[in-house]
Amino acid sequence: MTPSPDRSRTRPARESRGRVTHSMEAILTDAVALLDEAGESALTFRALAARLGGGVGSIYWYVSNKDELLDRASDHVMADVLASTEAHLTMPDPIDSLRAIAVTLFEAIVERPWLGAYFMRNTDVQPNAMRIFERLGQQAMRLDLSSQDSFHAVSAIIGFVVGTAADLGQRPPPEVRNGTVTREEYAAEHLDGWRELDPEEFPFVHHILEDFASHDDAEEFRAGLDLLLAGLRLQAGR
Amino acid sequence: MTPSPDRSRTRPARESRGRVTHSMEAILTDAVALLDEAGESALTFRALAARLGGGVGSIYWYVSNKDELLDRASDHVMADVLASTEAHLTMPDPIDSLRAIAVTLFEAIVERPWLGAYFMRNTDVQPNAMRIFERLGQQAMRLDLSSQDSFHAVSAIIGFVVGTAADLGQRPPPEVRNGTVTREEYAAEHLDGWRELDPEEFPFVHHILEDFASHDDAEEFRAGLDLLLAGLRLQAGR
Repeated sequence: MTPSPDRSRTRPARESRGRVTHSMEAILTDAVALLDEAGESALTFRALAARLGGGVGSIYWYVSNKDELLDRASDHVMADVLASTEAHLTMPDPIDSLRAIAVTLFEAIVERPWLGAYFMRNTDVQPNAMRIFERLGQQAMRLDLSSQDSFHAVSAIIGFVVGTAADLGQRPPPEVRNGTVTREEYAAEHLDGWRELDPEEFPFVHHILEDFASHDDAEEFRAGLDLLLAGLRLQAGR
Repeated sequence: MTPSPDRSRTRPARESRGRVTHSMEAILTDAVALLDEAGESALTFRALAARLGGGVGSIYWYVSNKDELLDRASDHVMADVLASTEAHLTMPDPIDSLRAIAVTLFEAIVERPWLGAYFMRNTDVQPNAMRIFERLGQQAMRLDLSSQDSFHAVSAIIGFVVGTAADLGQRPPPEVRNGTVTREEYAAEHLDGWRELDPEEFPFVHHILEDFASHDDAEEFRAGLDLLLAGLRLQAGR
């Protein structure tokens, strides 16, 4: 195990000497705020220190580098996700529980485009992510699959949730990023491009044109998740 | 449609004046090489011009900005993926075709970690990505689903493929990136961390410990894809 003790529970010894003025909680709260406002590139130790009103030294007391800061900030947010999944653990049908936990995680990542890249990246400093993984796993265990099948099922659910949510949240097209067009205008232009494709060469595109025009990302995610869970239900013989 | 005519087929008029010396083909081939060698941050117009042996002007003749360059470079690679899927189109079972096309796309993105972020980002300049989407769609049409279900099915397959492959390829942990430990050593350390978790609180983690220890990313992907396709087969009543 990487030597990364959870220092959040210990008061730093240096505090008495007046050099460590912030708590881990304050550091992570402000790190999340910076990430929410302007993404990963905005999160520097300097910017964070300025926001906290102090020097970078007291941040380094808690977190050794930016990667660890990103991993811990991601896990800080996961505390809320973990709390929200509490209600989903005692559903009669474990597939329903898996769906509800997956949707909760999906919504959290869509809301915070920076989050997906760090979920479970370093579980040594991400106890909350580890508990979400465990919660999904305990529901999968109720399906009486082999250990390998349950591992694959949980991995597939997490892969689908994180991959889809990250794709939705990240990398909007440049025209949208720089404000030249709104997301809706961009989608409409895109749709015009699809409409102009040769129907002989692109029969499927024309077949789904109206579905694409009116599609809702969250609904699309749920439809895909339901296919995955239907396959899992079949595998479990339920 | 965004005015982005495919200039790759026209010889630039300026070439006779000696200022445009490269073809779109050469530009994209070298852009892909830079991306393969060192990722997105390495791909600058300056670095690309140096590699091509000329000024940045002739690159700008073909491509108006870095986003377009990334989108076109991604699509350049997709030509090979498209060619590789040719053999998968006439399988008797459309689910088998969908699986084969999905695996081909997955392998291409795992091989090139930068690729996932740009697949279908701007289909106006990505005719090959559009054709891969169409090919998946034509297989889905063979399942006689509603247009919305077939749209959702293809979106789910692409979301799972791109999300899983991008997650595998991108953002290796910092210790691995900077060469402190190999990927295998990192995984082993990680496993030790999981092994030390309290079995009462983490029964699932202990249940799948050996599966996690011996897991293979590509096998894990295929298992998840099979769950998704089993759900789709059930939906199609086949």
